[in-house]
Amino acid sequence: MAGSHFLFVPGPTNVPERVLRAMVVPMEDHRSPKFPDLTLPLFEGAKKVFKTKDGQIFLFPSSGTGMWESAFQNTLSPGDKVLMSRFGQFSHLWIDMAQRLGFDVQILEEEWGTGVKPEKIEEVLRADKSHKIKAVCATHNETATGVASDIGAVRKAIDAAGHPALFYVDTVSSLGSLDFRQDEWGVDLAVSGSQKGFMLPAGLGLLGVSQKALAASKTASSKRCYFDFDDMIKANATGYFPYTPPLPLLYGLREALRIIEEEGLEAIFKRHSRLAGGVRAAVKAWGLAPCAKEPKWYSDTVTAIVVPPQYNAVEVIKTAYVRYNLSLGAGLSQLAGKVFRIGHLGDLNELMLLGAISGAEMAMADVGIPVTLGSGVAAAQAHYRAANAAAAKAEKAA
Amino acid sequence: MAGSHFLFVPGPTNVPERVLRAMVVPMEDHRSPKFPDLTLPLFEGAKKVFKTKDGQIFLFPSSGTGMWESAFQNTLSPGDKVLMSRFGQFSHLWIDMAQRLGFDVQILEEEWGTGVKPEKIEEVLRADKSHKIKAVCATHNETATGVASDIGAVRKAIDAAGHPALFYVDTVSSLGSLDFRQDEWGVDLAVSGSQKGFMLPAGLGLLGVSQKALAASKTASSKRCYFDFDDMIKANATGYFPYTPPLPLLYGLREALRIIEEEGLEAIFKRHSRLAGGVRAAVKAWGLAPCAKEPKWYSDTVTAIVVPPQYNAVEVIKTAYVRYNLSLGAGLSQLAGKVFRIGHLGDLNELMLLGAISGAEMAMADVGIPVTLGSGVAAAQAHYRAANAAAAKAEKAA
Amino acid sequence: MAGSHFLFVPGPTNVPERVLRAMVVPMEDHRSPKFPDLTLPLFEGAKKVFKTKDGQIFLFPSSGTGMWESAFQNTLSPGDKVLMSRFGQFSHLWIDMAQRLGFDVQILEEEWGTGVKPEKIEEVLRADKSHKIKAVCATHNETATGVASDIGAVRKAIDAAGHPALFYVDTVSSLGSLDFRQDEWGVDLAVSGSQKGFMLPAGLGLLGVSQKALAASKTASSKRCYFDFDDMIKANATGYFPYTPPLPLLYGLREALRIIEEEGLEAIFKRHSRLAGGVRAAVKAWGLAPCAKEPKWYSDTVTAIVVPPQYNAVEVIKTAYVRYNLSLGAGLSQLAGKVFRIGHLGDLNELMLLGAISGAEMAMADVGIPVTLGSGVAAAQAHYRAANAAAAKAEKAA
Amino acid sequence: MAGSHFLFVPGPTNVPERVLRAMVVPMEDHRSPKFPDLTLPLFEGAKKVFKTKDGQIFLFPSSGTGMWESAFQNTLSPGDKVLMSRFGQFSHLWIDMAQRLGFDVQILEEEWGTGVKPEKIEEVLRADKSHKIKAVCATHNETATGVASDIGAVRKAIDAAGHPALFYVDTVSSLGSLDFRQDEWGVDLAVSGSQKGFMLPAGLGLLGVSQKALAASKTASSKRCYFDFDDMIKANATGYFPYTPPLPLLYGLREALRIIEEEGLEAIFKRHSRLAGGVRAAVKAWGLAPCAKEPKWYSDTVTAIVVPPQYNAVEVIKTAYVRYNLSLGAGLSQLAGKVFRIGHLGDLNELMLLGAISGAEMAMADVGIPVTLGSGVAAAQAHYRAANAAAAKAEKAA
Repeated sequence: MAGSHFLFVPGPTNVPERVLRAMVVPMEDHRSPKFPDLTLPLFEGAKKVFKTKDGQIFLFPSSGTGMWESAFQNTLSPGDKVLMSRFGQFSHLWIDMAQRLGFDVQILEEEWGTGVKPEKIEEVLRADKSHKIKAVCATHNETATGVASDIGAVRKAIDAAGHPALFYVDTVSSLGSLDFRQDEWGVDLAVSGSQKGFMLPAGLGLLGVSQKALAASKTASSKRCYFDFDDMIKANATGYFPYTPPLPLLYGLREALRIIEEEGLEAIFKRHSRLAGGVRAAVKAWGLAPCAKEPKWYSDTVTAIVVPPQYNAVEVIKTAYVRYNLSLGAGLSQLAGKVFRIGHLGDLNELMLLGAISGAEMAMADVGIPVTLGSGVAAAQAHYRAANAAAAKAEKAA
Repeated sequence: MAGSHFLFVPGPTNVPERVLRAMVVPMEDHRSPKFPDLTLPLFEGAKKVFKTKDGQIFLFPSSGTGMWESAFQNTLSPGDKVLMSRFGQFSHLWIDMAQRLGFDVQILEEEWGTGVKPEKIEEVLRADKSHKIKAVCATHNETATGVASDIGAVRKAIDAAGHPALFYVDTVSSLGSLDFRQDEWGVDLAVSGSQKGFMLPAGLGLLGVSQKALAASKTASSKRCYFDFDDMIKANATGYFPYTPPLPLLYGLREALRIIEEEGLEAIFKRHSRLAGGVRAAVKAWGLAPCAKEPKWYSDTVTAIVVPPQYNAVEVIKTAYVRYNLSLGAGLSQLAGKVFRIGHLGDLNELMLLGAISGAEMAMADVGIPVTLGSGVAAAQAHYRAANAAAAKAEKAA
Repeated sequence: MAGSHFLFVPGPTNVPERVLRAMVVPMEDHRSPKFPDLTLPLFEGAKKVFKTKDGQIFLFPSSGTGMWESAFQNTLSPGDKVLMSRFGQFSHLWIDMAQRLGFDVQILEEEWGTGVKPEKIEEVLRADKSHKIKAVCATHNETATGVASDIGAVRKAIDAAGHPALFYVDTVSSLGSLDFRQDEWGVDLAVSGSQKGFMLPAGLGLLGVSQKALAASKTASSKRCYFDFDDMIKANATGYFPYTPPLPLLYGLREALRIIEEEGLEAIFKRHSRLAGGVRAAVKAWGLAPCAKEPKWYSDTVTAIVVPPQYNAVEVIKTAYVRYNLSLGAGLSQLAGKVFRIGHLGDLNELMLLGAISGAEMAMADVGIPVTLGSGVAAAQAHYRAANAAAAKAEKAA
Repeated sequence: MAGSHFLFVPGPTNVPERVLRAMVVPMEDHRSPKFPDLTLPLFEGAKKVFKTKDGQIFLFPSSGTGMWESAFQNTLSPGDKVLMSRFGQFSHLWIDMAQRLGFDVQILEEEWGTGVKPEKIEEVLRADKSHKIKAVCATHNETATGVASDIGAVRKAIDAAGHPALFYVDTVSSLGSLDFRQDEWGVDLAVSGSQKGFMLPAGLGLLGVSQKALAASKTASSKRCYFDFDDMIKANATGYFPYTPPLPLLYGLREALRIIEEEGLEAIFKRHSRLAGGVRAAVKAWGLAPCAKEPKWYSDTVTAIVVPPQYNAVEVIKTAYVRYNLSLGAGLSQLAGKVFRIGHLGDLNELMLLGAISGAEMAMADVGIPVTLGSGVAAAQAHYRAANAAAAKAEKAA
C-alpha cells in the first residue's frame, strides 16, 4: 500500500529515523579496547530514565518478558511467596510466569479497567506478620486496558505496613513515557524493554535493580545462568558483556538516550499527557468510553476504547488495517472483540495521532458504528490547541 | 520535535522506506561488466512511466531544471523562436531559462490559476506560415498554482495548425502521478526529475526524447557538453555513462520503478485523483477556494489554497511548521502571502493527508482564519469513504 | 581511523551489506495479518541450514548462550545427569551453565587443542546401564582453540552404546559454515546464534529441536518461562510469537537465508574450507603452529595461532588493533597471551583474509616475532590459486 | 560473491559507513527556516578543503564534469582563447569540452606519463603579448596515467609571464587527498566532484571560485542557466538553492567534512602519500613500472601500472574482478590494454590496500605475468612499517 503505515499499537513504537540510522553499523569486536566508550555511557544514561542513582541497570539480549524472568530468578527462591495484582492481560501473564517459575503467588484480582489498589496491598502485607511475602509486584501501565497505577502509592502502602518485601514494577509500557521514579518510589526491580518508550526495536531488555535487590540476589536460590546478575555485574564493570551483545540496539540506545535528553524527560511526559488528552477527547466526542473506569486510571500511553456491544472491535481493527494502513491494538483475552486500542507513546506528535484518529473514525463508520466523521479529530484538535495556548501562557508568565 | 515530520510541499516528496533502503549501497565500479545489469532495465522501466516506446530516456546527474536546459541545448540553435505559456512561477522560470539561453521566446501570458490554452497556441502556429517557431513548450502541471493543463489538447492544436515545431513538456510535478502519454500525445521532449512522482531524492534528471527530437539534435547548434545527448547515447547503448553516475539514485530508481509497477500506473493516477479530491473537499468545507480557477484546471498533485485577503498565508505556513511539524508550500512570486500549498503526490495515503489537513486547519485557526476545526477532515473523510465505496461497487460489478 | 575495519574475531562476523540494508525497517504490528508472510518462511529456511526436516526451529530474542539454557531447561529435570566434554573456553562455559542450572555434570576432560572423543563417550554410555545419563553434549566447533569435532561420530558412539540419552550440540560457530546435519546425525538439540554463520548481529538465538526432544519437553520439570518451547510452539504455528520479536533481525534473517540459498550450503562449506586452508598455509609459512593438535581437529571457521613462548599474543592483538585497524581474537582462559585467533567464517573472501594475514604479519613483526613479511600471504595466495585451479579442473571434468 | 568487494578504481571511492548512514534521511522542505542550519556550514567547511578564504564554493547537482562546464560557461565568452595541456584521457576530455563549448583551445601536447610543464606555459603566455589567452587550464591529477602536476609552479609561471589569464584547475581526483591550495596558488576555478576525496557517491559537483573569476562572470557571455553562478549566489547567501538540491549528498557532505576535520587535512595527505608509497614499492618488487615517467610525476591517489608488452592488462582486470572480487581501473584510450590502475584515495587504509595488492598479484600470476606471489605485499608491508617507525620517531622527537 502506498504511503507510510500508521503504527498505533502500544508497542513496538515508531523508531525515529535518527535511531534507525544509528543502528546501521558494521559489526565490531565486543571485546575491543574501544567498546566501553560505547557501553559505559549507556548504563549511566539509562539510569536517568529509570530515575535511579543508587541502582544498577542491566541490558540483556531479550524482550521485556525476559526481564520479568531475570528479576524473579535473581532475587527469589523456589516456593517464595509473591503478591501480585491482576487486572489485564499483561499483569495476568506476569502472574502466569511467577507460577510457572515455581513461586507461590497470592493474587489480588482487580476489575479490568482499574489497577493496583495500594490499600489492599497494605492490608495483605499488614496481615503477613511473619513476612512470608518476599515480593510485591505491580504493573505500572497495563497495556491491555490502558490503565496506569499509582506506583508511589504502592510504595507508601508497603512502608505503611512496615513490610520488607522487595518491590517489582513492570514499566515496559510506561518507562520513558510516564513519570517513573525508581529511587524515590523504592522500586527494587524495574522491568522494561526497548520497544516502547525507548523507541527501539524489540530485543533489548532493560532492568533497573536496587542495592536491596542486588543484596537479595546473593542468597536467592532460583536456578539461572543466562539472566544471571553476577556475570553481568562482573563484565559490565569494565564495559563488557558476558556474551555477544546485540550491537545495533546498543548504538540505537545511545541515540535514543540522546533524543530523550534533548527533549527532556519531563517534556516527554507532558507531551504524552497532551497527546493522550486528545485521544480521550476524541473518544468522548464519538460517544464512546475508554476501558479505564475512572480518570484516575487513565493511561497516557495507550487507550483501550470500548465499542458498542452490538459491534465487533475486531472488524474495526481489520478495516483500519486493510483499508487505511492503520494498525490498532486488539482487545486481549476477556476484552477480545470488545475494545480496540490506540497506542500513543514513543516518538509521536499531534498530526500522526490526528491521522490515526481520523482513520479510526472512518473504520468505525465503515463497520456501522454511528460516529460523526471529523468529530473526534475536532475534539482532539481543540484539546491540542488549548494545551498549546496554556503552555504559551505559562511560558509567558515564567 | 518528536514524531515524524509531515512533508507536504509539492516536492521533494516522501521517499518510501523501500527506496530509502535500496539507496544504502556501497560504491562500485561504474565500468564493471555487471553494471549494465543495473542500468539497462532502468531505461526500459522509465519508458513505461513516460509511456513511450519509440523514445529514448536520458538519466542525468542533475535536477529537473537541468533537463529543461538539456532539452533546449540539444534541439535548438541560438536565436530559434520558441512559443511558451506563462501562468505561474515554474512556467515563468522555464521562459526565463529559454531567454537566457538565447532563444527568441514568444510568450502567451495566461491568468495565474489557469493553464495552457490550446486554442491560442493553434492560432499562433497557424499564423506562423514560415514555421519560424521551432518549439512549443507547455508545463503539464504548474506547481505554483496547482494547475494541470491538457497536453493532449495542445498536441491536437499543433496538429490542427499543421505545424512542425517540436513539442516540449515539463512533467516534473506530473510524471508518475498524473496521466502522461509521451508517444500518444506526440511529446518530443518530456522533462522530469527524480524528486516528485519517482519518490526519490533530487539529483537525477529524467528526459524522454522522441525520435524526431533526436533527429533535431543532429543539427541543433547550441553549445553543450555536459547535457549532450550524443555522449549519453553512445555510452548508454551498452549500459554505461559518459561520467560517474549517482549510484544510490540509480538503485533507488530501480526500487521506485518496482513500486510503481506493483501498484500500477493507472492505480497510482486514481489514487492521486482520490487523494486530491479529499483535499479539495476540505478546502470547500473551510469556505476557501483553490487558486485554480475552474475544476478543469485542478491539479491532482498539488493544491494552492487562497487565504482570505486580510490574512497572510506565510503565517499559516510558519505556524504549521513551528507548531505542528508540517511543511506546506509557500506562495511564490505574485502569490506570495496569498496562498499556501498542499502537495499531494508521490508515496502518500489518506491518513497522511488527513493528518496534514488537520494540521492546516489548526494552523489557520491559530492565525485567526475562521475555519471550523475538523470540518476539512470530515469532508475529506467523506470523500475517501465515498470513493472507496464506489471502487468496491465497481469491483463487484466487474 | 580511515578505511574499513578488518573484523577477524570469530564472531560477530561481518554483516553483508544486503543484510545490513534489509534490517533498516520501520516497526510494524507483530500481530498483523501480514506478519506470518515474513515469519513462516524463516522457520522453513532455517530448517534447511540445520539440515532437519523432522525437527522444529525456535527463534528467541537472545544470544546463543540463551539457547544453551533453553535446550537444557525444556528437556531436563533438576539433578539430571549430563555428559559433557571440556577442551576450551566455550565447552567450559557450557558445562558451567549446566552445573549452575542444577544438573549433575559428568565431565570428560580433553586436552585443549583436541576435541570430543567419541570412543570415550561410548565407553561412558556403555557403563551407564541404568541410563542415568539423560544428555550427551558436544561442542561442534570450539571457538577458543579452533577445534572442530566429529559430531556424526559421536552419534555413532551413542548408538553403538545403545543409549537413549538426548544429544545436544553447540553449533554456534559452525552452523552455516561447517557441514552440520541435524537429522542424519540424530542431534536432538542444536544450539546456535545469529552472529556467526548467519551473518547477522547478535540478538537472535536459533535452536533446532528434534521430535524426541520435543517429547522430552513434555515431562522435563526444570522451571522456565521465557525460553519455554510450548509458548513458542503455540504462537509459531500461525506465524506469531509469544512476545515482541526483534523485527530487524527477522528481516535480516530473511535476507541472510536468501544469500545462503544463492551461494548454496555446500558451496559455502567449500569456501570456508578453502579460506581456512589459506590461513593454515600462512601459519606454516610463519613457522608457527595452530593450537589444534592434529589436522583432524582443524576448524574451518577459526584458527588459534600459538605464538612463540617468549612473546605475548596480547601484544600482537593490541598492535593489530591500534596500528592496522584489525581485530583478532584473544586467547581465553589457559590460552590467554599464548594464542591469537583469526576468525574465518561468515561473509568472507580471499582478499579480506589476505588483508588480515598481512596485518597479522606486520603486527607480529612489530612485536618482534621473527616472521618473514609476505611469507604468510604468499603461502595463502598459493593455496587459493591451487584451490581455484583444482575447482576449475573439476568443473571442466564434470 | 561472498565478502566485501575490493573497490580500487580511482573513483568512485569507498563511502565510509558514517557517511553512508548520514545519507539515510527522510526528505525535507529545502525552503524551510531550518534548512540553512544544514547548508551554510557546508560552504564554510568546503572552503577549508579547497584552502580558500577569499573564494566562494558552489555545490551543484552534477558530476565533476558539469563543474568543468560551469567554470567555462560562467567566465568565458564564445571564441575565447584557452591554453590547455593534454597528457591523459581526462585532460583530453576537458579539452574536448572546451572545444565543443566553442572556445579556441591552444593545446600543449605532453607525453602521457608526464604532466603540465610550467616552463612551456610561461613561454606561451609571454608570447601572448595582447593577452588573447583568457584561460590557463591544468589537470592537477591525471587519473588515467597516475600523474600529479605541480600547480603552484604553474601559478608561478603565469605570474612570471605577467599574464592576466584566469587559472582553472581540475582537482577532481586530488582535492581532499593531495595538497591543494586555492588561494596560495591563485587558482581561479577549482573543479571537483563528490566521489573521490570527499568520499561520497557521485552527484554533487563542487566548484571553488575566486573573486577574480566571480568578477569575470559579470561579463562572460557564454549562454548558461543551470550552472549559472548568479542564481546560486543569490540563493546560497541565505542558505538556499535555486532548485531542489540532492539532500542525501548534502547530509553526506556534512559528515564527510567532519571526518576530514577529525583526521586533519595534512594527516590525510600524509596517509595518501604513505599508502601510495606502498603501492609503488609493490610495483617495483613485481619488476614492473608505473606509467608515470619519473618520481616527480607520481600521483599519491592513483597508480597506473604498465604490464609487460606481451600481456593484456584487460585480462588482469577481468580476472581480478571475476575471481577475486577486486575492481581495478582500466587503461583508457592509448593506454587501453597496456596498464591497469590501482586507485588509492579516499577512505582507505593499509590492510585494504594490501588485500588489493595481493589480489593484483594473483590476477597477474593467473594470466601468466611472472610476478612472485607475496613480493608486492612484502614490499608494501616494509614500506608501511618503515613509515610508521619514522612517524613514531618524529613524534617522539617533537
